[in-house]
Amino acid sequence: MANRIFGQIPNFPEGSSFASRAELSRAGVHRPTMAGISGAGEEGADSIVLSGGYEDDRDEGDEIIYTGHGGRDPNSGKQVADQQFTAGNKALALDKARGLPVRVIRGNMLDSKYAPKEEYRYDGLYYVDDFWSEIGRSGHRVWRYRLVKEKGKPVPVEDSLVASPSDRRAERVETTIQRLVRDTKQSRQIKSLYDYTCQFCGIRLSTSVGGYAEGAHIRPLGRPHDGPDSSDNLLCSCPNHHVLFDMGAISVNDDLTLIGMAGKLTLHAKHKVNSDHLRYHRVHYADTPTATTNTA
Amino acid sequence: MANRIFGQIPNFPEGSSFASRAELSRAGVHRPTMAGISGAGEEGADSIVLSGGYEDDRDEGDEIIYTGHGGRDPNSGKQVADQQFTAGNKALALDKARGLPVRVIRGNMLDSKYAPKEEYRYDGLYYVDDFWSEIGRSGHRVWRYRLVKEKGKPVPVEDSLVASPSDRRAERVETTIQRLVRDTKQSRQIKSLYDYTCQFCGIRLSTSVGGYAEGAHIRPLGRPHDGPDSSDNLLCSCPNHHVLFDMGAISVNDDLTLIGMAGKLTLHAKHKVNSDHLRYHRVHYADTPTATTNTA
Repeated sequence: MANRIFGQIPNFPEGSSFASRAELSRAGVHRPTMAGISGAGEEGADSIVLSGGYEDDRDEGDEIIYTGHGGRDPNSGKQVADQQFTAGNKALALDKARGLPVRVIRGNMLDSKYAPKEEYRYDGLYYVDDFWSEIGRSGHRVWRYRLVKEKGKPVPVEDSLVASPSDRRAERVETTIQRLVRDTKQSRQIKSLYDYTCQFCGIRLSTSVGGYAEGAHIRPLGRPHDGPDSSDNLLCSCPNHHVLFDMGAISVNDDLTLIGMAGKLTLHAKHKVNSDHLRYHRVHYADTPTATTNTA
Repeated sequence: MANRIFGQIPNFPEGSSFASRAELSRAGVHRPTMAGISGAGEEGADSIVLSGGYEDDRDEGDEIIYTGHGGRDPNSGKQVADQQFTAGNKALALDKARGLPVRVIRGNMLDSKYAPKEEYRYDGLYYVDDFWSEIGRSGHRVWRYRLVKEKGKPVPVEDSLVASPSDRRAERVETTIQRLVRDTKQSRQIKSLYDYTCQFCGIRLSTSVGGYAEGAHIRPLGRPHDGPDSSDNLLCSCPNHHVLFDMGAISVNDDLTLIGMAGKLTLHAKHKVNSDHLRYHRVHYADTPTATTNTA
């Protein structure tokens, strides 16, 4: 599609209503008149419509677990085949890699307390916080996405108590969240144990206040994964390998050999890693689940 | 100090009031009875009190620009010497590196619409989003910190529409923000121009949806820096070098040789970098400003 627009569509602020899919399409807020995902694998997804199609979708308002498309019987709506990592499914994953914002539209057919009473409503910009695959209730593989509403953004304020140090006046720059790294008490302990040295590659980023590393939860925190914040579910990682791990480009076998890169995970004598969590990561995140043979 | 507590103090929720500094101290919400920063350079800062001490502080509620301590004449309160990157100043910087949360307390002497009418009020947890140095109005170097209130966190919800895939029920895990990477339209273009290859080190992180890189603004967006979102103020960086650049551990000379690491910045024929912005980064962020000789 030419001119795919990521972000707000001029003249259609958050809260705008639309009588039909055709009207949504004409406005450019969600172009396809049938598909739930507007996107292409090489461009990203610019909008989605939530209208109750998938039983596993979950809508908490500011946080949505959304199921990818494909593999359903058009008549029964039942999942009859695996979903492929192509088209809209790949497009939504690309949004995470690229930090692209997604317009979210809710329809009145949606089974959620956040659904509008009638018509369709544009509910603002979300970012794709996570994506993974799982075997759905049908026994077929589906792709799932966690979308989180943009709200961590400090609101730009027009007037200043202090003169700007620059002649250039503050401009409002539209930003979206590409990546949000969370920290926990346990992750601080693991990072300290390794002196901020990456367990994947051995690098230690050095700054004026000491080392910098991130705690990578193997089985992610939060629903639906519900990974624990415990040391056996944590790795000390440099930001590069944290990104690769979270996106499933690298993973870890039970014998600690690495998938997606050469070598073996460094493990401190005082650190035990739970192999159930490693398996969870391989199954749900690793690029090619069939290739993650358990070698232990 | 033994047992420095980062995060909420039990029994003192956000909004709690305290009659005096002594009471704040006894509660453990802010231990020192005089100092504005509670912290140590090797441990981090666990709390700060805003009470109008520094004229350059700025309070926008959810976002605070806070000035470090030291170098002031105790009688006049005037800045008479450079602030050192030690004690509380280093502690607040460490919070950024480690993702440690800071309790913020506002006092009624604070010149801000967010100040309480009387006494002291605990206003919740903030994270240190940025730190830099600048020459204050006095002509002396001061350290400054942007603190942003924790609110991007999706609220955990107790009950679920879908059964948890694990036997373990979802636990509420206290997380704080260690790092938030923002994305803009211009940064997408720069990342694409370089095909997601880091201009510092030449690495290209490869994922199932293509390359991953981040757009590093040389002069940061947002006040007080007011850097523009333009290609001449952007670099395509891997996450590791983005962290190091944002924390001033590496920087770039006008001739594109690197400070803090070997080599030279890779520059695409279609990409121009503004040397004013490079100088801004060297002056305000680079570890040892006196060492950043302009070699151009």
